Amino acid sequence: MKNRTLLMIPGPIEFEPAVLSAMGEPTTSHLAPTFIEAFGQSLQQMRQVFESPSGQPLVLAGSGTLAMDCAGANLVEPRDKALVVNTGYFSERFATILQRYGAEVSLVSAPPGGRPNLEQVKSALESGSFKLLTITHVDTSTAVLAEVQAIANLGRQYGVLVIVDGVCSVAGEELQMDAWGVDLTLTASQKAVGVPPGLALMMIGPRALEAFRKRTTPVLNYYADWTNWLPIMQAYEARKLSYFGTPPVNLIFALDVSLGQILAEGMPRRFARHIAISRACKAGMQALGLGQVPLKPEFAAHTLTAPRYPKGVNGAEFIAGVLQAGVTLAGGLFPTIRNEYFRIGHMGAVTLGDVLATISAIESALAGCGYEFTPNAGVEAAQLASKTP
Amino acid sequence: MKNRTLLMIPGPIEFEPAVLSAMGEPTTSHLAPTFIEAFGQSLQQMRQVFESPSGQPLVLAGSGTLAMDCAGANLVEPRDKALVVNTGYFSERFATILQRYGAEVSLVSAPPGGRPNLEQVKSALESGSFKLLTITHVDTSTAVLAEVQAIANLGRQYGVLVIVDGVCSVAGEELQMDAWGVDLTLTASQKAVGVPPGLALMMIGPRALEAFRKRTTPVLNYYADWTNWLPIMQAYEARKLSYFGTPPVNLIFALDVSLGQILAEGMPRRFARHIAISRACKAGMQALGLGQVPLKPEFAAHTLTAPRYPKGVNGAEFIAGVLQAGVTLAGGLFPTIRNEYFRIGHMGAVTLGDVLATISAIESALAGCGYEFTPNAGVEAAQLASKTP
Repeated sequence: MKNRTLLMIPGPIEFEPAVLSAMGEPTTSHLAPTFIEAFGQSLQQMRQVFESPSGQPLVLAGSGTLAMDCAGANLVEPRDKALVVNTGYFSERFATILQRYGAEVSLVSAPPGGRPNLEQVKSALESGSFKLLTITHVDTSTAVLAEVQAIANLGRQYGVLVIVDGVCSVAGEELQMDAWGVDLTLTASQKAVGVPPGLALMMIGPRALEAFRKRTTPVLNYYADWTNWLPIMQAYEARKLSYFGTPPVNLIFALDVSLGQILAEGMPRRFARHIAISRACKAGMQALGLGQVPLKPEFAAHTLTAPRYPKGVNGAEFIAGVLQAGVTLAGGLFPTIRNEYFRIGHMGAVTLGDVLATISAIESALAGCGYEFTPNAGVEAAQLASKTP
Repeated sequence: MKNRTLLMIPGPIEFEPAVLSAMGEPTTSHLAPTFIEAFGQSLQQMRQVFESPSGQPLVLAGSGTLAMDCAGANLVEPRDKALVVNTGYFSERFATILQRYGAEVSLVSAPPGGRPNLEQVKSALESGSFKLLTITHVDTSTAVLAEVQAIANLGRQYGVLVIVDGVCSVAGEELQMDAWGVDLTLTASQKAVGVPPGLALMMIGPRALEAFRKRTTPVLNYYADWTNWLPIMQAYEARKLSYFGTPPVNLIFALDVSLGQILAEGMPRRFARHIAISRACKAGMQALGLGQVPLKPEFAAHTLTAPRYPKGVNGAEFIAGVLQAGVTLAGGLFPTIRNEYFRIGHMGAVTLGDVLATISAIESALAGCGYEFTPNAGVEAAQLASKTP
């Protein structure tokens, strides 16, 4: 009895013991040599995790929404045109943020669970002179995976800054920031980066930095203003003393530990592990007869799964039943269909064992809800899928 | 050998073991019943710590600067007039923030270590129709304590919103928010509140909320916008499910623990303890012949001490010597005098023993710098002062 449930939501996730241990260490000064080293090393490690040797890393105390806000506030000037590739709730939030800073936003959308195809994005880009476009790599609300590489390629062709919301993707889904021509990638700590919530992270590419430096109007947000933070990030990376605001010391020590673990695993191996675990989870759901929110298999993310409830199963009752069986899952989030599906997060430190335990708990809850299926079919299919290359 | 130094800077401070233990616990879902209870209880406890039964508490992932930014962004509309009672670096930062959101800012200032007197504040209030005034309760850069009660009283007389930056004061210096007529108090977790850095906290009084609701222009900062967060705070306090951004789960569990400890001590006892420890520290510095940045004893805060280096003592060499003796102190921060003084934080979980150890380390460093004084005079004076009521 660990007196706690297995946390299988799409963030926060199960964290590594060494990361939690760093969280609970006595706090040092934000100017202590050990902290300067940990922060400096974290920034360097971020370049490898984001696959962006040319990028400028930035870490702030805040949530993933702050990371989105920070990107919007620093890159948008009033009346800039922005294109949002809309794959769910968080894409729409990005549109709202860009508008807040004065952007004229166009959305290219699809039905819930769908994603705009490349032709749609291309014709949207044809239609107006956009300064930037945003892509939600994985929209946590729908589990839809966007075609970042292909869309970034289009963005480059049309001379548009490419911003990737990688909150539910960085360190879980393949993302070669420099090679794919992405200009800014942002994320939050509590997802595949593997650190408790409280850090907003981003990697700013050279073209995004140049656009920032060419601004003719002030950034309309003081806390998020890169003017305040870039010298601080550069100082920590150079292992020099500096101060603007007190950094979240314990979270950054934890970040240093987690990034070290991620790089020790290696990015290609890590992405392959996420794909294998995702395949197992999805095979399990399919064997139990559950559909998914993403309209096609190739639209589905590898960091989470969004299964639809079978007919007759009540969502609240089901989630409670899974919890009873020792696993915490998340309900739906996309407004128009939120009561029709649930979400299983499987990223970061997650193991195949965690996914099998989760599927077993799901089977138990489904049985409790009176749904009929072959007992153990989900677990068996997942095990089998995990062994298939 | 604890293989670490005693952390005696003005934040982050030494934290209680139970607080650090909460930091390192496995993270729960932000919707788990245990987390909803901890967050809801934290918000309720904040009202007692801020002595503001009428206030609306708000907790965000971010630094103290975010708390200042959040207050400014939500209360300022373009061309509002604001008065900044300037007692140091952080007062000036507040002026910068208010200007960012379009305020026309007037400062009423004093030389470094001084504070504007009430007549100056009153005549400034006479001179213009201000919407709000800001007071830095303790400016961490100068260790100057502002006369919050008296200035708030003036603010009330002139119908001006009174905003208190309590970053280095809340839970350390007496502050009766409702009784004194303060409309908004903000702070950060890593000071006297006793939680590692990463949380911005504030208490919004009814008049400030009313001013926010009467805005005719949008808040020019998405992340800090109260529109997004107030329903979330109200939901957690009512122990209901809600979501806007993922709260910093571990930090909030730690906050719940620390606020519980603060209230168990009781506010009057806690303030008295801070006064006694401050008196001991300051007596020790005086006995060693060190002056202080605050120009008069009554200007000096009780949460930190800012002693001036004696003639001939090099600051960098001194700080390194103190560190060698096992204690981490902070250098000066106010730009024009930053190399002339250092700072000792003594708030939160600090004990008389910590202060005595610090003074002993200071004596050791001073001796190493060739400064002459009666050995043990500082420690002895501090011990004596701690026994004098």
